[in-house]
Amino acid sequence: MMAMMNAAVFTGPGRIVLGRKPVPVAGPGEAVIKVTMTTICGTDVHILKGEYPVAEGLTIGHEPVGVVAELGAGVTGYKIGQRVLAGAITPCGQCHTCLDGHGAQCGGHAIGGWRFGNTIDGCQAEYVKVPHAMANLAPIPDGLSDEQVLMCPDIMSTGFGGAENGAIRIGDTVVVFAQGPIGLCATAGAKLRGASRIVVVDGVPERLAMARRLGADETVDFHAGDPVEQVMRLTGGADVAIEALGTQQTFESCLRVLKPGGTLSSLGVYSGKLGLPVDAFAAGLGDHRIVTTLCPGGKERMRRLMNVLASRRVDLGPLVTHRFRLEEIELAYDLFANQRDGVLKVAITP
Amino acid sequence: MMAMMNAAVFTGPGRIVLGRKPVPVAGPGEAVIKVTMTTICGTDVHILKGEYPVAEGLTIGHEPVGVVAELGAGVTGYKIGQRVLAGAITPCGQCHTCLDGHGAQCGGHAIGGWRFGNTIDGCQAEYVKVPHAMANLAPIPDGLSDEQVLMCPDIMSTGFGGAENGAIRIGDTVVVFAQGPIGLCATAGAKLRGASRIVVVDGVPERLAMARRLGADETVDFHAGDPVEQVMRLTGGADVAIEALGTQQTFESCLRVLKPGGTLSSLGVYSGKLGLPVDAFAAGLGDHRIVTTLCPGGKERMRRLMNVLASRRVDLGPLVTHRFRLEEIELAYDLFANQRDGVLKVAITP
Amino acid sequence: MMAMMNAAVFTGPGRIVLGRKPVPVAGPGEAVIKVTMTTICGTDVHILKGEYPVAEGLTIGHEPVGVVAELGAGVTGYKIGQRVLAGAITPCGQCHTCLDGHGAQCGGHAIGGWRFGNTIDGCQAEYVKVPHAMANLAPIPDGLSDEQVLMCPDIMSTGFGGAENGAIRIGDTVVVFAQGPIGLCATAGAKLRGASRIVVVDGVPERLAMARRLGADETVDFHAGDPVEQVMRLTGGADVAIEALGTQQTFESCLRVLKPGGTLSSLGVYSGKLGLPVDAFAAGLGDHRIVTTLCPGGKERMRRLMNVLASRRVDLGPLVTHRFRLEEIELAYDLFANQRDGVLKVAITP
Amino acid sequence: MMAMMNAAVFTGPGRIVLGRKPVPVAGPGEAVIKVTMTTICGTDVHILKGEYPVAEGLTIGHEPVGVVAELGAGVTGYKIGQRVLAGAITPCGQCHTCLDGHGAQCGGHAIGGWRFGNTIDGCQAEYVKVPHAMANLAPIPDGLSDEQVLMCPDIMSTGFGGAENGAIRIGDTVVVFAQGPIGLCATAGAKLRGASRIVVVDGVPERLAMARRLGADETVDFHAGDPVEQVMRLTGGADVAIEALGTQQTFESCLRVLKPGGTLSSLGVYSGKLGLPVDAFAAGLGDHRIVTTLCPGGKERMRRLMNVLASRRVDLGPLVTHRFRLEEIELAYDLFANQRDGVLKVAITP
Repeated sequence: MMAMMNAAVFTGPGRIVLGRKPVPVAGPGEAVIKVTMTTICGTDVHILKGEYPVAEGLTIGHEPVGVVAELGAGVTGYKIGQRVLAGAITPCGQCHTCLDGHGAQCGGHAIGGWRFGNTIDGCQAEYVKVPHAMANLAPIPDGLSDEQVLMCPDIMSTGFGGAENGAIRIGDTVVVFAQGPIGLCATAGAKLRGASRIVVVDGVPERLAMARRLGADETVDFHAGDPVEQVMRLTGGADVAIEALGTQQTFESCLRVLKPGGTLSSLGVYSGKLGLPVDAFAAGLGDHRIVTTLCPGGKERMRRLMNVLASRRVDLGPLVTHRFRLEEIELAYDLFANQRDGVLKVAITP
Repeated sequence: MMAMMNAAVFTGPGRIVLGRKPVPVAGPGEAVIKVTMTTICGTDVHILKGEYPVAEGLTIGHEPVGVVAELGAGVTGYKIGQRVLAGAITPCGQCHTCLDGHGAQCGGHAIGGWRFGNTIDGCQAEYVKVPHAMANLAPIPDGLSDEQVLMCPDIMSTGFGGAENGAIRIGDTVVVFAQGPIGLCATAGAKLRGASRIVVVDGVPERLAMARRLGADETVDFHAGDPVEQVMRLTGGADVAIEALGTQQTFESCLRVLKPGGTLSSLGVYSGKLGLPVDAFAAGLGDHRIVTTLCPGGKERMRRLMNVLASRRVDLGPLVTHRFRLEEIELAYDLFANQRDGVLKVAITP
Repeated sequence: MMAMMNAAVFTGPGRIVLGRKPVPVAGPGEAVIKVTMTTICGTDVHILKGEYPVAEGLTIGHEPVGVVAELGAGVTGYKIGQRVLAGAITPCGQCHTCLDGHGAQCGGHAIGGWRFGNTIDGCQAEYVKVPHAMANLAPIPDGLSDEQVLMCPDIMSTGFGGAENGAIRIGDTVVVFAQGPIGLCATAGAKLRGASRIVVVDGVPERLAMARRLGADETVDFHAGDPVEQVMRLTGGADVAIEALGTQQTFESCLRVLKPGGTLSSLGVYSGKLGLPVDAFAAGLGDHRIVTTLCPGGKERMRRLMNVLASRRVDLGPLVTHRFRLEEIELAYDLFANQRDGVLKVAITP
Repeated sequence: MMAMMNAAVFTGPGRIVLGRKPVPVAGPGEAVIKVTMTTICGTDVHILKGEYPVAEGLTIGHEPVGVVAELGAGVTGYKIGQRVLAGAITPCGQCHTCLDGHGAQCGGHAIGGWRFGNTIDGCQAEYVKVPHAMANLAPIPDGLSDEQVLMCPDIMSTGFGGAENGAIRIGDTVVVFAQGPIGLCATAGAKLRGASRIVVVDGVPERLAMARRLGADETVDFHAGDPVEQVMRLTGGADVAIEALGTQQTFESCLRVLKPGGTLSSLGVYSGKLGLPVDAFAAGLGDHRIVTTLCPGGKERMRRLMNVLASRRVDLGPLVTHRFRLEEIELAYDLFANQRDGVLKVAITP
């Protein structure tokens, strides 16, 4: 008799519902995790709204924290019951793209490495099957709670990646546009890389306050006037600008505040055509660089991020503002999708 | 009595004419070069057409080859009569931007480092004054003719810079869109960096033929069908794409042929708003990088480029297709601006 | 009944002999290659002499070219009979070290990634079993013969790696000390990266001649006088020096010819204590960099190297100076270990 | 009549004495600073002991903080009385070496860029003349005291440079050997770059305590047992090891604690021959990197470092343990050279 479990299932645009599914079984090279905590990502909301296409019937969710429940053939070095997490993206480590250093693009097609809740069942469920388990199961250090590491799989890896790929140097001025969860992580990452002045832009007072807590030196509220002008008045120009929203306006604003030779590190996911303002991006004339970062995954990446948390240099715990049981997943989506009650991230406990 | 000389002077949109001007005099830190050869750049044509604003009365031209005629106070290590050239961009080496490694942006304002024929008198003249001479006078090695080094100041430095900043690795597939003088230099640069497959796109048979001579493995004529499709059919995706024209279409085509994780190296100067196609540049989803390069200058850069020419690894001599005396400068502009007779670059001899 | 095959087996210091062994069988994730060509490496000679410890009874050899004979469970995307090679080092792609970008150190212990003929049976045999086959089987492009790709697994990857890690820039002066097979590949690699002046040092006229063929601009015979002095007289100082022998003297010579800020790229394997000359390496005073490179492996690396060969930019075929059948392996070792008859590399055909 | 001033003058091995000298006069491109604070460096002690040769009669000192007293011809953008400092090394910005990105090696000879108290009169005096003033005068931000910025010119720039050149990544384990002033700055720099675990080694309890204050997570007292064993027990191997003493033992220890692929960042100045332990540095087998850093100078570097101090992310004020007037310079040398009374750095006020 097949064991059954609860899972958050996409059943069509506008509908992610609690359903019943068989507990997955680990094939060779795979593992099954009993999920002890997970969360909802902005991307999941795009799926909910039908803006990002996934198959109907798919379990959603790509940020799993849990314990090892089953190890498939060939998966060694782990034991049942061990606390682990996996990144949102699960590189195989063995394809040309992975071996070329682009694990997040595993398989060689854009976002090819993103599988959970995209091309395979995700982790908003009691159990989740992890592909390429040898490359992706990251043991959680003692002393870190589920809630403390819950941001590692996606937003910490993405936000920090934005700071790392921005090639921030000691003494740099960094501007971060948008202080949602990923933007906040980018702010924390910029601090960790040695930026000496971090200016953040958002319109929500609670987010600006959280940004200060995570490392921002100055905050710009875009309701108080043109944010580009405000940033320029404060800084005279940035070495690095990080885009963490995904709109034409924030992208363009980033370019407008950069010094010649500066770097735009882009994290947002854009819809529609993105325009580069030629007066800001006089391509070839500004020696600018634009880098884009998809969430880096793999167990080594997760190990490093958890090390940072274990060192107490950064505390992302405060990003969890609301807690739900998996049975309440529809309530959780409702709150998160509508950005009510100052929600930043929710913790879901199966 | 002030010595006078011939010079190509901008006197208003549509008019670059031969005029008479005083021979410049070197102030402290400056030098005067007797120009023995120079050329016309696409940017000069923009000036001619009134598309790029410069002061009326300015001498045009930023690609000087010549001999030292006068050394100002404090300029040491050179002697009168010595063969030298200077880059199109003349960094001071001592401002914050230069010391931060962005010499082409000297002064901290975009294209701040471009002075010749932009903010000060240029070199389409019998003599030209070189600012920050200690940082910019580059001795020409014996055995290299004026014509052989004529591309160093601008298009070789720019085109090679596009290949260098593209971070080409051994074994990469590189696509270069447009094979005008700068694109051709980018092709030669890509070959020099170890690309194992170089595909170039243009519509002029002579340029495609020249591209093969400079290192292209395959050529795509955009008259023969959609160039993106042709490139993809040949390569399956490029590691690096170099844009050397400055249009929406070529920029967008570059993004469309890139593999995930690939780099777009942009050399073109765009007018109007540049659109990023979101399906190609799903920012944050492709781990792409866009880099822009303004012509690197300074005597060390010029020394390196001339070393390459002296080593006979690259021969840019064939890019000079037409020769004029300075007195014929208006004819030269007429030919070059209208791209007649298969012109690539002209040599102007005062 | 177990199928048997010929193999070159280490049976104790001084003895690598032709023996009979069972044909290997592919386990999960593994593949068996029918070897069509292999070669002998300097490291194998160290093993022969008992200078590098391996288990008695081990099959030697780490440079396999062949066809797929058997694919273990989970190995997909290949077919029996397909021409492939594997690198000398076979990274798993999934451990922390691989995921951190150090595949050659797979497993996290120095040279942990080197398995063939070191910790598992090697490829101087009729068949060889390839671990982590998904990460390591590299299809050979049509049009390249076994002999043409025979250098890819080790010396081309190592020598080119020395040039790549030396961070050679366009216009650099590069000196390569020692022109054995790896040094010759480093010379070819330096050419491919855009060095404008390559000076090589050796004492064997045939090797200096081969060096010119592969890209050297100037050769220094150390019998003609102190090589450091000769190099300095020619160059005035190098940007990059590549060490390809593994002796105190060549290592020290590299440091002595470097310009301030220069890079020593070290490929040799040293025995005994290595002294850094303080007058050359006034550590902290020269802004020097020393990088060491162990042969990069994995199928993506092999793909790139074969692309270079397919592009005809480099021809390493001439490095094969002698050919033997596997049955003659002892003769081959005798010739190669004693460096007789101008041998560079031998081709062994099972 | 020539104005005279006090200065600390080297008059032969063992003798740095207070003397009288003419106040310097600024030539073209130079400036004179009225020194308001300076300090003594370990290198000055080498000079005192006759271990590093300088001309007799030279004024010692290379860490100047002060106000502009005189500006030579061509020095613009500053005004008399403005608070400024200059780096220990004063690059010209215009020679080949500077333009090639190696400003600390200005002139192209090792430590060519170090002039103050080495090849020209230094700043342990009432006034000091700054060469290449346009490239080297760095205004001090309001709100930072002389004592707060006193470490910028040398030890902060050097120590931070060691962390920066070590290419520390987020989540790295970093070990710093020796916690004198430069080692302590390296510790602070490693923290600032995002290392998640910093282990430091020294034998002086006060230095280990200060290290914790500046960012060390764990301290190893070498009196308590073999430091390599202690570090390995704590960490299992480091990503980056920083050498800040300049002895065979610490250099070798760095190599012994590195993981494969790790980086040794060397800041110490070694005397005698330095041995590389082959079992640790099996060159070519560990994919290790060794980088050396000479104190980066120039006004942009100083600007960045002062920005870090102004941001309050790092406080180096506690490194000043003792204060002297210039008249007491001989007492100051006596204390500092003999490392008495827990001295770290002394502040000297003319």
